[in-house]
Amino acid sequence: MKKLLIIGIGAGNPEYVTIQAVNALNQVDVFFVMDKGPAKGKLVALRKEIIERYVKDRTYRVVEATSPERRVGEPDYVRTVEDLNRDKQDIFERLIADELRDGECGAFLVWGDPSLYDSTMRIVAAIAQSGRHVFEYEVIPGISSVQALAAKHRIALNAIGRPLAITNGRAIAEGFPDHVDSAVVMLDSQNAFRQVADEDLDIYWGAYVGTPDEILIAGKLRDVMDEIERSRAEARQRHGWIMDTYLLKRRGSEDV
Amino acid sequence: MKKLLIIGIGAGNPEYVTIQAVNALNQVDVFFVMDKGPAKGKLVALRKEIIERYVKDRTYRVVEATSPERRVGEPDYVRTVEDLNRDKQDIFERLIADELRDGECGAFLVWGDPSLYDSTMRIVAAIAQSGRHVFEYEVIPGISSVQALAAKHRIALNAIGRPLAITNGRAIAEGFPDHVDSAVVMLDSQNAFRQVADEDLDIYWGAYVGTPDEILIAGKLRDVMDEIERSRAEARQRHGWIMDTYLLKRRGSEDV
Repeated sequence: MKKLLIIGIGAGNPEYVTIQAVNALNQVDVFFVMDKGPAKGKLVALRKEIIERYVKDRTYRVVEATSPERRVGEPDYVRTVEDLNRDKQDIFERLIADELRDGECGAFLVWGDPSLYDSTMRIVAAIAQSGRHVFEYEVIPGISSVQALAAKHRIALNAIGRPLAITNGRAIAEGFPDHVDSAVVMLDSQNAFRQVADEDLDIYWGAYVGTPDEILIAGKLRDVMDEIERSRAEARQRHGWIMDTYLLKRRGSEDV
Repeated sequence: MKKLLIIGIGAGNPEYVTIQAVNALNQVDVFFVMDKGPAKGKLVALRKEIIERYVKDRTYRVVEATSPERRVGEPDYVRTVEDLNRDKQDIFERLIADELRDGECGAFLVWGDPSLYDSTMRIVAAIAQSGRHVFEYEVIPGISSVQALAAKHRIALNAIGRPLAITNGRAIAEGFPDHVDSAVVMLDSQNAFRQVADEDLDIYWGAYVGTPDEILIAGKLRDVMDEIERSRAEARQRHGWIMDTYLLKRRGSEDV
């Protein structure tokens, strides 16, 4: 039997890795390292740093594969992600078939937490359901960028007793969600917070959270949104990529 | 200067503790252990297990305080939590004033992640703002019960490109939230999932997730809700307390 581990390695700080993840890393024979785009070099390096720091007295192989990229500019976002996931599935199937021997353990290291805006579980489940490969698999949770952001700003995500939305740039551009006082926005490359600037909101923004390049800005959305936009553009240019997240909270919803 | 750490210790499995949390635990002079209710013994024991397992070659004190309890049956939930937090704040202030010496580091260990449905950050921020005590403080994120649940069910929280709600029993009883396909429900003691059984939903339910007592049930909500209700009642009776969470997903929203 082959075994696959989907390991959340946390978002940014190598110390976000859990003891469970460290123990899992020490069972692995083959690490599959997939990344893409301008952040590729940095993210591959971070994964290798985590492997080297935490794996003790064990030999392992690292197999790098280039992740296919999502076609941009297509009108149907979900369709392009589905197409992308099918391409990724082909690559994963090849890795499982050719690079992992019977009795061995392979691992995908997922940035942040595998349960939030990541397709690795979906793709591995599809392969398992296809019946084309026999393997067992397990998922190890990791600290998400959302939690890292909240910890660094020392702010609770939800108001007392109130629901919270975790959403993305495309959705927030259509308006602040009803029936919640707090919304975490991930995957926003367009400064979509500008679209809700007429609402009375506080923003807690962070880029490269948990890394030495971390930038944190918080304040009344209307007061700080220009600073965030400027800071974002400048950081993206300096680093060649950006990874940022933010929390929007209705003013007056907090209660201390 | 006094220092306070608010350390997320993860939800259930002692191996959910992060390397950052382990390093933080090893700076602590005084652990403040607060718990309440029927789960008190178990949760205090889990905190002590984590301290003993991970703190190496260091002397420390453990100060236990009984957490005040929220008055139940009051109509205004937010008001009762605010009252509760004021009572907790009095206790925290006394602990900081009387039990922590200048130059020492004190810590609150928070079950799960401090940013989700937990008041420790709010209370410590209120004390810092009061100006009555001089201290610095830091927050360490932890694996939440939400992430543990998703990992054990091996299911992504969000549908591709779609927002997600994190909500509670009282809110879900008023209806499945608009504009999302997925909702995580925490703090539901009333089987509120029954109130949305007319929607076409899958449920992924878990109790004591990550512990040896873990129970997982998943399926079409209408098909498994009786089993969940039965299992919940039986487990609560057997253990004297229950800690459970669930994810509701619109059927057909998933795309693999």
